[in-house]
Amino acid sequence: MFNRILVANRGEIALRVIRACHDLNIEAVAVYSEADRGAPWLDHADQTVCIGPAVSAESYLKIPRIIAAAEKTGSQAIHPGYGFLSENSRFAEQCRASGIEFIGPSVDAMDRLGNKDKSKTVARAAKVPTVPGSDGLIESEDEAKRFARNVGYPVLVKASAGGGGRGMRVARDEAELVTGLAAARAEAEAAFKDGSVFLEKYLDRPRHVEVQLVGDQHGNVIHLFERDCSLQRRHQKLVEESPSPNLPDKVRQEMCTAAVRLAKEAKYYNAGTCEFLVDQQNNFYFIEVNARVQVEHPVTELVTGVDIIREQIRVAAGEKLSYAQKDIQQRGCAIEVRINAEDPANDFRGSPGVVKTWRPPGGPGVRLDSHVCAGYRVPSNYDSMVAKLLVHQPTRAEAFAVMRRCLREFVVEGIHTTIPILKTIFDNPQFIEGKVDTTFIERVLLPRTA
Amino acid sequence: MFNRILVANRGEIALRVIRACHDLNIEAVAVYSEADRGAPWLDHADQTVCIGPAVSAESYLKIPRIIAAAEKTGSQAIHPGYGFLSENSRFAEQCRASGIEFIGPSVDAMDRLGNKDKSKTVARAAKVPTVPGSDGLIESEDEAKRFARNVGYPVLVKASAGGGGRGMRVARDEAELVTGLAAARAEAEAAFKDGSVFLEKYLDRPRHVEVQLVGDQHGNVIHLFERDCSLQRRHQKLVEESPSPNLPDKVRQEMCTAAVRLAKEAKYYNAGTCEFLVDQQNNFYFIEVNARVQVEHPVTELVTGVDIIREQIRVAAGEKLSYAQKDIQQRGCAIEVRINAEDPANDFRGSPGVVKTWRPPGGPGVRLDSHVCAGYRVPSNYDSMVAKLLVHQPTRAEAFAVMRRCLREFVVEGIHTTIPILKTIFDNPQFIEGKVDTTFIERVLLPRTA
Repeated sequence: MFNRILVANRGEIALRVIRACHDLNIEAVAVYSEADRGAPWLDHADQTVCIGPAVSAESYLKIPRIIAAAEKTGSQAIHPGYGFLSENSRFAEQCRASGIEFIGPSVDAMDRLGNKDKSKTVARAAKVPTVPGSDGLIESEDEAKRFARNVGYPVLVKASAGGGGRGMRVARDEAELVTGLAAARAEAEAAFKDGSVFLEKYLDRPRHVEVQLVGDQHGNVIHLFERDCSLQRRHQKLVEESPSPNLPDKVRQEMCTAAVRLAKEAKYYNAGTCEFLVDQQNNFYFIEVNARVQVEHPVTELVTGVDIIREQIRVAAGEKLSYAQKDIQQRGCAIEVRINAEDPANDFRGSPGVVKTWRPPGGPGVRLDSHVCAGYRVPSNYDSMVAKLLVHQPTRAEAFAVMRRCLREFVVEGIHTTIPILKTIFDNPQFIEGKVDTTFIERVLLPRTA
Repeated sequence: MFNRILVANRGEIALRVIRACHDLNIEAVAVYSEADRGAPWLDHADQTVCIGPAVSAESYLKIPRIIAAAEKTGSQAIHPGYGFLSENSRFAEQCRASGIEFIGPSVDAMDRLGNKDKSKTVARAAKVPTVPGSDGLIESEDEAKRFARNVGYPVLVKASAGGGGRGMRVARDEAELVTGLAAARAEAEAAFKDGSVFLEKYLDRPRHVEVQLVGDQHGNVIHLFERDCSLQRRHQKLVEESPSPNLPDKVRQEMCTAAVRLAKEAKYYNAGTCEFLVDQQNNFYFIEVNARVQVEHPVTELVTGVDIIREQIRVAAGEKLSYAQKDIQQRGCAIEVRINAEDPANDFRGSPGVVKTWRPPGGPGVRLDSHVCAGYRVPSNYDSMVAKLLVHQPTRAEAFAVMRRCLREFVVEGIHTTIPILKTIFDNPQFIEGKVDTTFIERVLLPRTA
């Protein structure tokens, strides 16, 4: 097992990984940008290293500085968290070339699955259903038009390197297809320096259901059941839960075993997530693999009792999985909400600044993953998430009741947060019945901001 | 179901009950003494009522003031928490006579079980093994000497109304028996206005294992498995865990079903705990019933997933238990430590005062039940407990690792706490092996303060 791990991230996930290291008696090295100097989670680390200025490209995304920090501190492994360099196979490769283990899958698996186009090839080989899509990248308008006429509108233009909704356009007719192609290409080129796009059949009001996977370097892969992440605003998840409500057990089982099949096909190890869209007839279609731990991983930790971060570290050190598939049960209902420093009354504009009061809720079955405390200044440079609030209860109805109580109980002053909109969501009768899809927020709850 | 419940307690258990009320959509009324004016948990209540001066006898123990507060606020039920009036059957009777439901067992069950002497009669009727003891109260020295000669020294003198180690003396010979009798009588008279005592065979280095029970008013009683509370200092529990380590499964099952038998014999309902001593041959002996919720109830909540406070409220409202025995499983290992405002380096002297820094630990499987925040003044008038820190992990080894990390992570400034002694306890090889008994702290860990 490693003696010292460098955490190449910031905020709540940095604190989460530091704690997991300490739970395993491993020292944790934290890196920070100048914007994060003196941030509270750094107090938890055994050592800290400044890796550059506030701008991510010069700090949290700067591969040589992070590897240098690991070398300087004698770290034997790097945990990338989510976002930043977590899905960058070049980073993984350079870590390993420097004799430092990258806590994630193999470079080969990242390359095969990190690209949505290539990952569909893997899915097909594993007999996992995919959304009808273009056969590889779209090279011309004509090719795009032919595909759309073939599967029928609406179609979705997706950047090959995209994520978080960037580089994505829905086209409901040929005119929209032409403008959408150009817009998606331009956006992806600007964001990811890769303007390649592909096309897919656009599913009407689907649900987003994803399967958590963990695998070791000895060929074992298990699933930890699914999460329903249908509640999204502009492709950003707001609420995640497990089990997925109103999903027939047969479909759940098929989806989970399909995800394991796909991971085995790609010789996948470490933690990963296989994302699916589920249509109104409960047909599921593979969309992509997130080859890293996800923001919403605690939902799965609560229903299964598995500590996913500790498991990531163990398998990266060459250990076998601590669990066999038969050990994994889905118990009760867990729900996570993302509390962001944003103003829902003002089109979700970012609300950085000093947190004056921070009085989080508590009680049985309540978990808060957060790096924030009173006096902390939320910087404007990074992701706006300030807390993940989770509840775990025997039933979905109880989970909703406790979540409502927790949202009422949570006092934050000094910054705006998404708590008010979350309260609205948990009072919504359709959501209470579990009858929501990925378009729900913009279509029903916030039609004006769609 | 009730609309409004008055919480007749303070501190962490008051906050715990308020949250449970809110989780059930019930309003919570908090009462407070003048020493607790402005205390942080009062902010969570829907209404607050001052019930008198700092001294408990004039506030938290003053029955007429509490009932008046319930009547004034239209509360339909009173939750007594633990300590204070929670095991006072006269209080329960007066609540019910005033048309306010007492959230606890029947007056009859409290009377039959609240008295240790009478409760043994119930145990015998239910064929539950008891520690060989005097047949009822001890009226004279001669009677005591006869009993001790009969069962053999050492023997234990116990006040009938005692608790928390008060009114208890071990006698290893006849001389100690004479002085012990007088001392126990005097202590019990002063503390409980009841000097009656009885005698028991004193078990050598026993473990303290207790079974959590819940029952409804329809005759259903189930157990929620056991807690091991062997780690005590001066009969005060410091650490509690579930499952009990090194307890054969057969003994666990027998003890749990014995506890249910006893509860059914007493027509017991609501939450209660059946306490046993377990000798070195794994024979178990009933010692007493705690006819209320206990400090350490969250240990059981973690391993079973049952919210005991919510269940108390539900059955008090006449509902049936939410669970059948077959629904209850003991999952993983949960451990609780009590963090008290005491100075372990100074003979555990109380350490009231203003909490300057309060930075509690967190992470998956960590629960903190506490009413404290930075700026809070711990009053000198009441129990010194400032937090219950719990971890729940798949295995005992993992629970110990996470507890050690949490104890290192917990920063409290301004008052002394028991955190340092708890760190020592969790590094002790005998405790790590689960080989401790109720004498361990004083015999091994702190022999000088015994």
